[in-house]
Amino acid sequence: MTDAATAVDHGHHGYITDKDKYLNRMKRIEGQARGIHKMVEDEKYCIDILTQISALTSALEAVAVGLLDDHLRHCVVDAARLGGAEADAKITEATQAIARLVR
Amino acid sequence: MTDAATAVDHGHHGYITDKDKYLNRMKRIEGQARGIHKMVEDEKYCIDILTQISALTSALEAVAVGLLDDHLRHCVVDAARLGGAEADAKITEATQAIARLVR
Amino acid sequence: MTDAATAVDHGHHGYITDKDKYLNRMKRIEGQARGIHKMVEDEKYCIDILTQISALTSALEAVAVGLLDDHLRHCVVDAARLGGAEADAKITEATQAIARLVR
Amino acid sequence: MTDAATAVDHGHHGYITDKDKYLNRMKRIEGQARGIHKMVEDEKYCIDILTQISALTSALEAVAVGLLDDHLRHCVVDAARLGGAEADAKITEATQAIARLVR
Repeated sequence: MTDAATAVDHGHHGYITDKDKYLNRMKRIEGQARGIHKMVEDEKYCIDILTQISALTSALEAVAVGLLDDHLRHCVVDAARLGGAEADAKITEATQAIARLVR
Repeated sequence: MTDAATAVDHGHHGYITDKDKYLNRMKRIEGQARGIHKMVEDEKYCIDILTQISALTSALEAVAVGLLDDHLRHCVVDAARLGGAEADAKITEATQAIARLVR
Repeated sequence: MTDAATAVDHGHHGYITDKDKYLNRMKRIEGQARGIHKMVEDEKYCIDILTQISALTSALEAVAVGLLDDHLRHCVVDAARLGGAEADAKITEATQAIARLVR
Repeated sequence: MTDAATAVDHGHHGYITDKDKYLNRMKRIEGQARGIHKMVEDEKYCIDILTQISALTSALEAVAVGLLDDHLRHCVVDAARLGGAEADAKITEATQAIARLVR
């Protein structure tokens, strides 16, 4: 799966070097979501739940920024080298994703 | 624990009327987090993962704003009626939670 | 206008104690906006402009959270003491403002 | 200053095609900031001020995303074509700017 040739065959997207890091972070994020569910179930103090939601949101934003960095570093740079309409389309797509994150 | 009388006995925090709604939303959020983990595992296209992260972040913000509304409506209003230092402390606590959400 | 008695006569909104602080902050924010305009005019480096925009956004968020704190502390607490439909309406209004800030 | 040749001579940064659009937006943003200052001075209703702050923040975010799009489209694409350490440094710089916007 870490073999570039295989990756191309399967249409993979180039951020595989950090895959384990992202999988671990997402595992932790799932755990945080489960923890918040439990806090609601146990009717924990509202402000404490909000603190956990803020922490979870920050963790998600860190994943998003990391993935975006990988995306710019690989897909966008590759497209830039090819140039033309595809480079333009990749930038537009990345900017729209950024706009959704920034809101 | 879902019995309102018991809840009062245990000093629970007054948002029990909407508890099922929040539990359902948190279940859905856990599912979204699991879905993003799977997308990373399957090396889905980065931009599609970012779209799902934005959706999850929005869902979390909606839960946070809902909980905050309940909190203002119950705890803060109760404290306001008592007045004095406790009312002040509750507002400060709520504002700090809002600041963490707004960033 | 900075006279508390006059403020009460005109149905003002209770955050007059911190008015100078907010006026100073807004003056600084206007200056920051002018500075960014000048940076665009002088075609400064894009990343440096973005840094200034982030700083301005943070300054605005701090003003918003401060105003919201004052609002909860005065209008919402007053309404809570009266109770009933007006207290409910004030909380709903505050929550909607928070939702717009959190997005 | 709107002459592309001049821009190049002065080491300008490539987003000159949209310069008037950004100058106009920043002019409007300055006006919005002045309007909020006036609302505080006149002690307008807190919630109405918060609404204007949310509008101003959104306008700033739109400018930031637009500038970032231009930056990716020009500086980053140029660096990508050159490749190597400079391309990497440009991406890192852009990602850090995005992280500050997303927070």
